[in-house]
Amino acid sequence: MNWRMMTPLIASLALGPAAVSDEGMWLYNNPPREQIKAKYGFELTDAWLDHLMKSSVRFNSGGSGSFVSEDGLVISNHHVGADALQKVGSKEKDYLKEGFYAAQASEEIRCVDLELNVLQSIEDVTAKVNAAIPAGVGAEAAFKARLKAMLEIESESFKSTGLRSDVVTLYQGGAYHLYRFKRYTDVRLVFAPEQQIAFYGGDPDNFEYPRFDLDICLFRVYEDGKPVKVTNYLKWSKNGAKEGDLTFVSGHPGRTDRLLTTTELEYLRDTAFPYQLERLKRREVLIRAWSERSAENARRAKEDLFGIQNSRKARDGGHAGLYDPLLMASKAKSEGDFRARLAGKPEYAVASAAYDRITQAQEVIGKNALRYRLLEGENGFTSESFALARRLLRAGAERPKPNGERLREFSEASKQSLELALFSDKPIYEDLEILTLADSLTLLAEKLGYQDALVAKVLAGKSPRARAADLILHTKVRDVAFRKKLYESGADAVAAENDPLIELARLVDPESRDLRKLMETQDEIKQQAHAAISKAQFALDGANTYPDATFTLRLSYGTVKGYQENGKSIPANTVFSGLYQRAKEMDNKPPFDLPARWQKQKSSLGMDVPLNFVGTHDIIGGNSGSPVVNTQGEFVGIIFDGNLPSLVLDFAYEDVQARSVSVHSAGILEALRKVYRVGPLADELATGKRKH
Amino acid sequence: MNWRMMTPLIASLALGPAAVSDEGMWLYNNPPREQIKAKYGFELTDAWLDHLMKSSVRFNSGGSGSFVSEDGLVISNHHVGADALQKVGSKEKDYLKEGFYAAQASEEIRCVDLELNVLQSIEDVTAKVNAAIPAGVGAEAAFKARLKAMLEIESESFKSTGLRSDVVTLYQGGAYHLYRFKRYTDVRLVFAPEQQIAFYGGDPDNFEYPRFDLDICLFRVYEDGKPVKVTNYLKWSKNGAKEGDLTFVSGHPGRTDRLLTTTELEYLRDTAFPYQLERLKRREVLIRAWSERSAENARRAKEDLFGIQNSRKARDGGHAGLYDPLLMASKAKSEGDFRARLAGKPEYAVASAAYDRITQAQEVIGKNALRYRLLEGENGFTSESFALARRLLRAGAERPKPNGERLREFSEASKQSLELALFSDKPIYEDLEILTLADSLTLLAEKLGYQDALVAKVLAGKSPRARAADLILHTKVRDVAFRKKLYESGADAVAAENDPLIELARLVDPESRDLRKLMETQDEIKQQAHAAISKAQFALDGANTYPDATFTLRLSYGTVKGYQENGKSIPANTVFSGLYQRAKEMDNKPPFDLPARWQKQKSSLGMDVPLNFVGTHDIIGGNSGSPVVNTQGEFVGIIFDGNLPSLVLDFAYEDVQARSVSVHSAGILEALRKVYRVGPLADELATGKRKH
Repeated sequence: MNWRMMTPLIASLALGPAAVSDEGMWLYNNPPREQIKAKYGFELTDAWLDHLMKSSVRFNSGGSGSFVSEDGLVISNHHVGADALQKVGSKEKDYLKEGFYAAQASEEIRCVDLELNVLQSIEDVTAKVNAAIPAGVGAEAAFKARLKAMLEIESESFKSTGLRSDVVTLYQGGAYHLYRFKRYTDVRLVFAPEQQIAFYGGDPDNFEYPRFDLDICLFRVYEDGKPVKVTNYLKWSKNGAKEGDLTFVSGHPGRTDRLLTTTELEYLRDTAFPYQLERLKRREVLIRAWSERSAENARRAKEDLFGIQNSRKARDGGHAGLYDPLLMASKAKSEGDFRARLAGKPEYAVASAAYDRITQAQEVIGKNALRYRLLEGENGFTSESFALARRLLRAGAERPKPNGERLREFSEASKQSLELALFSDKPIYEDLEILTLADSLTLLAEKLGYQDALVAKVLAGKSPRARAADLILHTKVRDVAFRKKLYESGADAVAAENDPLIELARLVDPESRDLRKLMETQDEIKQQAHAAISKAQFALDGANTYPDATFTLRLSYGTVKGYQENGKSIPANTVFSGLYQRAKEMDNKPPFDLPARWQKQKSSLGMDVPLNFVGTHDIIGGNSGSPVVNTQGEFVGIIFDGNLPSLVLDFAYEDVQARSVSVHSAGILEALRKVYRVGPLADELATGKRKH
Repeated sequence: MNWRMMTPLIASLALGPAAVSDEGMWLYNNPPREQIKAKYGFELTDAWLDHLMKSSVRFNSGGSGSFVSEDGLVISNHHVGADALQKVGSKEKDYLKEGFYAAQASEEIRCVDLELNVLQSIEDVTAKVNAAIPAGVGAEAAFKARLKAMLEIESESFKSTGLRSDVVTLYQGGAYHLYRFKRYTDVRLVFAPEQQIAFYGGDPDNFEYPRFDLDICLFRVYEDGKPVKVTNYLKWSKNGAKEGDLTFVSGHPGRTDRLLTTTELEYLRDTAFPYQLERLKRREVLIRAWSERSAENARRAKEDLFGIQNSRKARDGGHAGLYDPLLMASKAKSEGDFRARLAGKPEYAVASAAYDRITQAQEVIGKNALRYRLLEGENGFTSESFALARRLLRAGAERPKPNGERLREFSEASKQSLELALFSDKPIYEDLEILTLADSLTLLAEKLGYQDALVAKVLAGKSPRARAADLILHTKVRDVAFRKKLYESGADAVAAENDPLIELARLVDPESRDLRKLMETQDEIKQQAHAAISKAQFALDGANTYPDATFTLRLSYGTVKGYQENGKSIPANTVFSGLYQRAKEMDNKPPFDLPARWQKQKSSLGMDVPLNFVGTHDIIGGNSGSPVVNTQGEFVGIIFDGNLPSLVLDFAYEDVQARSVSVHSAGILEALRKVYRVGPLADELATGKRKH
């Protein structure tokens, strides 16, 4: 990070987000008209917003996208489409890895279980929902009445419009809005590049910038067996975006925690993140060292390792952000200011008291978190086998209980996913299990102390490695038939079962369940307190704020803009020559190897054509695949990542170094025409219609 | 580890080392005759011992070796010779990487600063040393008198024999022995294989087994410009060693801590090792992730990374050993037994009280270790730049003091190495410096707390990353001329210097110095207490014990023997076909790639010829290059590593899984003849003389 650039951030924080920064994941029915007008002189019109809204697409598998032709063509990220690509492929046809192109309509492959939603309207139903709650009833009755009202509104709306209708809880209960979507379930695969170029640079370049990724995937939406004709789609910009341009992101940020109090953020910074990072790094070293011992080990641990590295990078980035004293100071200031406004007003007494309730709950959490994570969170027993043993043990105890009294993962609603996990025949590797269980038993002993009474019982007079080998070599839980039989034999059989790992789960269970209950109670206290604060905030500032992300459509805006890092300027965009340079400097070795096509077609590519770019947009996970549009509402790029400093956006907006990362519209066309030679598809993007 | 094999260990520990196990790094003048006779029925004769002693060679750069021909040929490990190989090479001739062979005497290259020592005799001078100390003097006077007596003995011996004469302190002062060595300083390089095959498998296979390393290097010793003629050299065994064979290791173990008390071991297990491992793994992830971002990064961080990985593996292995409750129980039992023997005997009152003194000192250490490591140990400021800044700052304050009152690294004796480090122009990389300093400042804040007064001053209102970038970008200490000038300008100039990193060092200095003083005092208390215990032990059991390692010649013995791991048998030796199989299963990718010669000559090699083997010998760092001999005193192999479980041998002997790892004599000959085609050299080994 470049810290001589800090002054603007202070200014931005002091003056408040509206005046200077590009903060906000705004609701389409409460867009930041004044802020944009003030900073950029640009007027957001209703027509402009309506068009962008109806051109935006939600991938229910967890991402965003947009219509880019009147013939139902939808663009999203390769990593958003990855699941669909894998499902339509086979052992012989690895579309995820090799890419895909349907030259003709008949070759477009229908995706297995992909649902797309397109938002049509938003209606504020807060009054209706609140009116349904009888005055003076308790929390539980209020919850039931509210749920009933929401279901009724949804069902009425569906009956009258035929549209998918969801009542969305915003501002943690401060407002309820009815979102109506067009649903599309016949979605067909049109084009995907090789994963190698979509995720070029792999883990080393993940969350980094400069980048050179063609992270795109194209689908076509069908209705009644024919491509859907849409009136709202994004026109392809002729020139794309350049440094300094005002641009907009329309997508579905999944979840933010912008309303955490300073005591909660300090807890994350000082306790939770350091512990999580210590464990992630420990596991990364463990699994990587083991992976390097053989190709087979590497194959077995590949997914685990990538998941750990991805989490470690994300956490490290967020943690570094929390260490920014300016960010924390601005949080403390706005919290203090807001509490001052609540003080002495009887109508906000609950919100006013909520801060201390949160602090108290946080203290209880802090005192119990380590044991909770080690025991109930299984950090002390990390292995597939222990997870199975515990599920079997608890299924015995929980299933005979009334549905409402069970641990939630044993409720009737969770039955299918429980049984899916319990009876899965995915391979579990004895050697990897011993490795991870031994290491986590060591962690348990280190953290709770070798003399701790429970640790002594868990280790049973053996070293962690000896105990882990003993448990894994003697348990039967890796046998699906054993699991099925025990699960079906019921509570008495489970209680009588003396499999060593089930016995271990049993040994830990009383304290583990107590800790879970304690932590859930504190979480509930915090949630109620947050709802009170959030409602007060909405009542006082509703018009000027945006709610935490809810995986519903939001509008962000920002400037295409580079940044400074350790005294060096990182330019706003990369170009094709940079990709080839990177491959060369990394000796074309994985994950920096270029697909054969890219090597072959190098000479035909425009080396100065932009490939990726960064901007100050306020985004978070779920925004993957969001279109970036210019003031004309034209498609200029597609979000696919945030850089490391952007990982703090979970908690607070920052624009000194935090950047969204997008594929440039010009780079997409260039690659389609020159590398993939799919002229008709490129033409469809460029003209907004398909040639028939 | 295989834990169903534990019973023999319990038996071995219960019956004591002499009866069952192969424990011990024995003195040549107190060899384990009875133990070997009892267990193996083999008689150690004086002639046998004398021959092996005089055939053994100490590499003063830190390893072992042996004469293997009457013409002064010495064999050691490639990694022992690495420093010499690098020094005689050039940019054009990278002998370390490419290997070396002198086909004729005239091609043998003289090593730059290599000194070899060959032990000729040992004389017990304990009485003489002790007699020199006047009765009733204080500790300091006793220390001075003892030192004087030792120097006189050494000087007299040198005068009368012309041999290098060292008085060695054994049993921490329980005994003093005079070691007389023949010194050789004209040592010439004869043969080295490629580093690729010497360290085959690199870090992933380091400390692991099975192994496939040709970790050898051959030198010839010259005197008066001619190869030395020796009468004591090891004959090459015709068949080498096989599973079950009794074999001996004659080498120079560097340092062991076998006499640590249980409270000290518990401290290592529960506090010191977990902290060190957390930090090592954190740094490994940091530097590795950064290395993977570019080939240049990888080049810059390569050495650091390998060092960290090597330490992490070693620590992890030692830590796992300390978690073995049987090992700890046996330690506790023998300590309890010994304390019972001391109890009530006035002559052992000091030794008897020493245990509690150690525990008390350990408690003080435990309370201060974290701050000490972070501040004085620079764990909170990890960077070359901070180390330089601190050295400059302290040189200013220390150099005007009388020599005896300075911090030891500023004494006159250390002047040369201080100035070497201070004025070295080895490159220091700004980006890597920011990376490591930022991470260690984060560690500092995490461990001491964000609210800690010193942490707040260190961070100066910035985030760790911002502060690190600020310090590294603005300090002048990376400029050699600046360092030289400031160092030479003296105390006042240093006191007036406001370079930001020197200011940081100054800020930390008062507390850091206090912590150092406190810790050094506790170490001194422990050292004195250990000396008292050790002397009592020697007085009571001298004849039956061996002292902690002192980098002087020791004899170990053991069986060539495989072991069990996670329910699998690891055989005692590997063969050439295993090497090719390993290369194949790892796709011949680094560090598993075979040198070109080895690929080319594959068909001519005997695939069943043994390459490496393991044994139960009691070894530790410094034993690298030690010859392994059979009962006939013939060379059957050369130690080059220990497996992971052997890393606990620092603290206690273990023979369930701990194994020495050697190159097999047959494998050496086979490689020399068939891969390197150096028949004359192979003949010299096989016949014990060079053809002229």
